[in-house]
Amino acid sequence: MAADKPIKWRLAETWPAGLPIYSEGSHEFAEEVKKMSNGRLIISIDSANKHKAPFGVFDFVKTGQYEMGHSASYYWKGKDINTLFFTTMPFGMITSERFAWYYYGGGAELAKKVYGEYGITQYPGGNGGNQMGGWFKKEINSLDDIKSLKMRIPGFAGEVMSKVGGTVVNIPPGELYTALERNTIDALEWVGPAMDLRMGFHKIAPFYYTGWHEPGSGLQYMVNDKAFDKLPADLQEIVKSAMKNSAFNISNKMTNAHAENWDLIKKEYPGIKIKTFPPEVMSALKEANKELISDLEEKGGLTAEIVESQREYMRKARAWTNISDKAYLDN
Amino acid sequence: MAADKPIKWRLAETWPAGLPIYSEGSHEFAEEVKKMSNGRLIISIDSANKHKAPFGVFDFVKTGQYEMGHSASYYWKGKDINTLFFTTMPFGMITSERFAWYYYGGGAELAKKVYGEYGITQYPGGNGGNQMGGWFKKEINSLDDIKSLKMRIPGFAGEVMSKVGGTVVNIPPGELYTALERNTIDALEWVGPAMDLRMGFHKIAPFYYTGWHEPGSGLQYMVNDKAFDKLPADLQEIVKSAMKNSAFNISNKMTNAHAENWDLIKKEYPGIKIKTFPPEVMSALKEANKELISDLEEKGGLTAEIVESQREYMRKARAWTNISDKAYLDN
Repeated sequence: MAADKPIKWRLAETWPAGLPIYSEGSHEFAEEVKKMSNGRLIISIDSANKHKAPFGVFDFVKTGQYEMGHSASYYWKGKDINTLFFTTMPFGMITSERFAWYYYGGGAELAKKVYGEYGITQYPGGNGGNQMGGWFKKEINSLDDIKSLKMRIPGFAGEVMSKVGGTVVNIPPGELYTALERNTIDALEWVGPAMDLRMGFHKIAPFYYTGWHEPGSGLQYMVNDKAFDKLPADLQEIVKSAMKNSAFNISNKMTNAHAENWDLIKKEYPGIKIKTFPPEVMSALKEANKELISDLEEKGGLTAEIVESQREYMRKARAWTNISDKAYLDN
Repeated sequence: MAADKPIKWRLAETWPAGLPIYSEGSHEFAEEVKKMSNGRLIISIDSANKHKAPFGVFDFVKTGQYEMGHSASYYWKGKDINTLFFTTMPFGMITSERFAWYYYGGGAELAKKVYGEYGITQYPGGNGGNQMGGWFKKEINSLDDIKSLKMRIPGFAGEVMSKVGGTVVNIPPGELYTALERNTIDALEWVGPAMDLRMGFHKIAPFYYTGWHEPGSGLQYMVNDKAFDKLPADLQEIVKSAMKNSAFNISNKMTNAHAENWDLIKKEYPGIKIKTFPPEVMSALKEANKELISDLEEKGGLTAEIVESQREYMRKARAWTNISDKAYLDN
């Protein structure tokens, strides 16, 4: 059964070596491809420690230096603003809604228009779930409290926070704990209990805010189109199937790890308080988000098409979520 | 590449031919296996119209008459009460929690203990989402209203309903519309908008109640262990991968169809009212459910082990759901 010589592919991931769940996920993906192809397609993985360019993954795949990447679409918004929408958006779709939109509500077709230009096809690569709003040293009781807040919150959500008056700072992950401990920053968002536990923020910040800014953060696989087209049809199907499984596995593993780690944090630090921004702050964030998205929409073309697709899909999907999971959880 | 002679398998599904999403799902599964295996494993599917035994699927797979089945675990509770827990439970886990429990929280290992006895391995085969409480012709304002209610609600949920005083009747799917129209029954539960739309219940019952009884109904694939063991390792992996993809696809497709169809129903029948049972009724249902589960737990052994595993997992997972998706949806 074994082919004369295996096809060898390389995958660059944005993650550092050994990052739980995300990096595990891409390694499990490669292992599954190997098993299903009976060793005919071997994918080796370079973590950021190796290729030294966590935010170079898009270019690696575009140029074909790597056949594949595992990353998150919104990292490429500086290259192409239309990539922004394929991870998560503040006040946007939750995980179940986003997957439904992507696979059955037009998302994949829009992603093809965006990434096709670069000779890349992108696929969902897992979802981290509804991210927590972050760890805060002080309670937020008003919009004024936001105005005196110095917070690490990157990307588009950071733009929203900045628009309502917050001071947004960028600090490398390795320095975050110290920055929070020494009050260089007052707050930071990371992921949720699954990833936050090992960072230790719960030891130094007593308020854990619920999320608004990344309600279902989708990772991505990227595949170089030319490399993919050269594969025999059965290996193409195997790669696609293993990527989809990986998206599902990572999402389920994140739900599990959030649940387990939140339980641990609560037990060890029973003083941690779950908080939600007061309505005044939420309204201001929603309004700022709406304005920033309107600005994007005014670019017209594909950007406006994606914004409208997500808005219309979310209208329908949220109506369903509200009468199903939400109504159930409320009672 | 092609093997001399393809391996041929047969899958029996509980569904009637052409049932949207569920039957589509098993057909897509077979197609994916064919593509990934380059035609080395061909799985043909018999719907209930063909094999005439929608509830004979378990025995078909057990005896090896069919290598695989696509069905729902709770249909086998009469054969083995422990199969009950692998679909959904009243007031139990929602879809995301159930998948996390199954794949990473001990569910798969427990399923192996239950089904292993019969020479079957069961795998998740999709999830229909949080099912609606059903279509009601009259509003439910008190426990007394339940006591005068005649409702089609099968299975364990029906036992709960019966325990609080409702009259539970069993009517074949094809006769449900007429029974509701002619007031032979006052209410019925089916699935949710995805499947309810084509049944037309919204034309004759104005109250659509939110769910409590099937908060994330998991389908299943069953595989005959002897048949599986005979497959070469790469085909084993291909079958497992395609089943997991199918579970993910069906779940996402259901979310999409619920959203789309609920939007249609609302537009065409704007008079439909979404209702939730009053607290008095909910409390009684919860209490009845708790007592019925306690009765099961008293059997001890594997039954008690599964009940405890689900209870403990749900405690942790729900705490996470509450501070993530629920908190987000509330604001």
